Amino acid sequence: MKTLTVALGDRSYPIHIDRNLLGRSDLLRPHIHGRQVLVVSNETVAPLYLERLLQMLDGLELASVNLPDGERFKTLDTLNTIYTALLEKRFNRGCTLIALGGGVVGDITGFAAASYQRGVAFLQVPTTLLAQVDSSVGGKTGVNHALGKNMIGAFHQPRCVLIDTDTLDTLDDRQLSAGLAEVIKYGLIRDAAFFEWLERNMAALRARDKTALASAIERSCTIKAEIVAADEREGGVRALLNLGHTFGHAIETVTGYGNWLHGEAVGAGMAMAADLSARHDWIRRSDAERASALIRAAGLPVAAPPAMTRQQFLECMAVDKKAVDGGLRLVLLEAIGSAVVTAQYRPELLDETLDAAA
Amino acid sequence: MKTLTVALGDRSYPIHIDRNLLGRSDLLRPHIHGRQVLVVSNETVAPLYLERLLQMLDGLELASVNLPDGERFKTLDTLNTIYTALLEKRFNRGCTLIALGGGVVGDITGFAAASYQRGVAFLQVPTTLLAQVDSSVGGKTGVNHALGKNMIGAFHQPRCVLIDTDTLDTLDDRQLSAGLAEVIKYGLIRDAAFFEWLERNMAALRARDKTALASAIERSCTIKAEIVAADEREGGVRALLNLGHTFGHAIETVTGYGNWLHGEAVGAGMAMAADLSARHDWIRRSDAERASALIRAAGLPVAAPPAMTRQQFLECMAVDKKAVDGGLRLVLLEAIGSAVVTAQYRPELLDETLDAAA
Repeated sequence: MKTLTVALGDRSYPIHIDRNLLGRSDLLRPHIHGRQVLVVSNETVAPLYLERLLQMLDGLELASVNLPDGERFKTLDTLNTIYTALLEKRFNRGCTLIALGGGVVGDITGFAAASYQRGVAFLQVPTTLLAQVDSSVGGKTGVNHALGKNMIGAFHQPRCVLIDTDTLDTLDDRQLSAGLAEVIKYGLIRDAAFFEWLERNMAALRARDKTALASAIERSCTIKAEIVAADEREGGVRALLNLGHTFGHAIETVTGYGNWLHGEAVGAGMAMAADLSARHDWIRRSDAERASALIRAAGLPVAAPPAMTRQQFLECMAVDKKAVDGGLRLVLLEAIGSAVVTAQYRPELLDETLDAAA
Repeated sequence: MKTLTVALGDRSYPIHIDRNLLGRSDLLRPHIHGRQVLVVSNETVAPLYLERLLQMLDGLELASVNLPDGERFKTLDTLNTIYTALLEKRFNRGCTLIALGGGVVGDITGFAAASYQRGVAFLQVPTTLLAQVDSSVGGKTGVNHALGKNMIGAFHQPRCVLIDTDTLDTLDDRQLSAGLAEVIKYGLIRDAAFFEWLERNMAALRARDKTALASAIERSCTIKAEIVAADEREGGVRALLNLGHTFGHAIETVTGYGNWLHGEAVGAGMAMAADLSARHDWIRRSDAERASALIRAAGLPVAAPPAMTRQQFLECMAVDKKAVDGGLRLVLLEAIGSAVVTAQYRPELLDETLDAAA
């Protein structure tokens, strides 16, 4: 088993990564606060893993709620069903929530924990590759609004992240590819050697080679943990983790949440960011093409939907969380393995990228 | 002008108290973050004061939203109308929200600020006595759930509290009395001399004597600021501020939000807490009667609605935020001017208080 730490002082927490961790109650139970535990899952994941998780918590006061599956349900209304479950069970401020599922379940459960009685404990048990390498680590929680993705939320750190890589056995290929988008992201923003490793191992990853997947998850979580420890609230370096996300969120918002998976939109968004970086001559065109080739090799799109217009992109991007007075900031590449957050791009080149992508 | 400080390190903020502060843009503008400002008010307060507030912000990118008036609208749905206004205006993470109104407007605006794009700045401009002496100070924000009051929320401190006591001129008598409940609370939990001052000055306060009101507001905010500085997240002493609130929230939940004003329910709840304290012989019966007499003199009820049952109280109280594994804790009196949070009350005496109150 590998154990990483997200170093945040007295809110530090472990990330455990191994096969068969859903049997390891010794890892999970020390992080349970109080005796009341609500497990939040969804209708797809619960039939597969809920029973095993509940067995690990035997003897506690347990309840569970299953959300509908999909990004389109990451809403205030779904969030309210969690509050209702907590209140119907008379759960108090000393309770613990556990998110069992992918990024949607983790984000919404985390925000429920951040806001129920002004804040209770929660743990992450991610079961998709995307959640394991990205969304379960770092404390970003929230829900979508019809006018913008992840616009409502809080920073609220989990007390433990338990990554059982065996849960990937039940993940469909499309979801696996979506998770690989975030894996590629870490290579692009921070680690050229990891990017090259991914170029060599993409076929093995898509074939679900256990050793390759475990390595990719560990390296991804290591980078994420380092960045979160350095900048928990995204005042600086953490914004680099949004490579491809400004374009990607626009795609998700315009196409309707859930029609494109988040990772698919991020894949296309990263290809667009690489293209825009190359148009500025900040990276070589050949490096942008390497990025696109790896994204494509992961089974992901490298362009926005053809019907999407430049104007639609610009409207969505205007409310991006990185925007500040005076304009939009973008995460762009200086090299494979190095990214910057900048408002110093040329608008006419952005227009070219948007026109070329859609 | 009196200026108090809520001392919370780099999140410290001033409370300014005086007549005619709605003209003092020099006090407000230094706390505006960014250039985008959304003023949240309600349909009752906006016609009276919104224009003056907006004039103080001339030159900034201004927007406003008016909520329906009343505790029954302190919901996730109303909260969502604020998010929608922010997103329609393309407001970014560098914006500022200003709450102009009473406790409902302040609580819901504060939670919108806590959760929009995972947290933006906000200021409090309270226009009711209750908001001026209590809810605008200390960073408790949130909304109600059908199953429990203030069950959804966050701790999120304002950057400034601007208390223009002239706004009390337009407050109706019932709302004035509701605010006096929280004023009396400070005397009961912390300051016997203030309690005695209130006994002598209650008639002047209800007659809206400006000097008396300013003194009561200043003393109340001083005590609140001290307690919040000592225990921002309510791990200890801050819970004393909930004197009467466990009983009061039960009354508000059972009678339907808004039928009793919050301060009215707290008035009855404090009388019940004093009664229960006397039943334990922790305070003299004559002191409980002094408490009730002052609450009654403020124009407030000292008993729950006759139709409310012991069982209804106990069900609501089971989800009280002070509850922990092992049972409910209550704020009770050791003397006029001294309170404790305790689980060491005798259940049969609680039953007597509940039966006697309803």
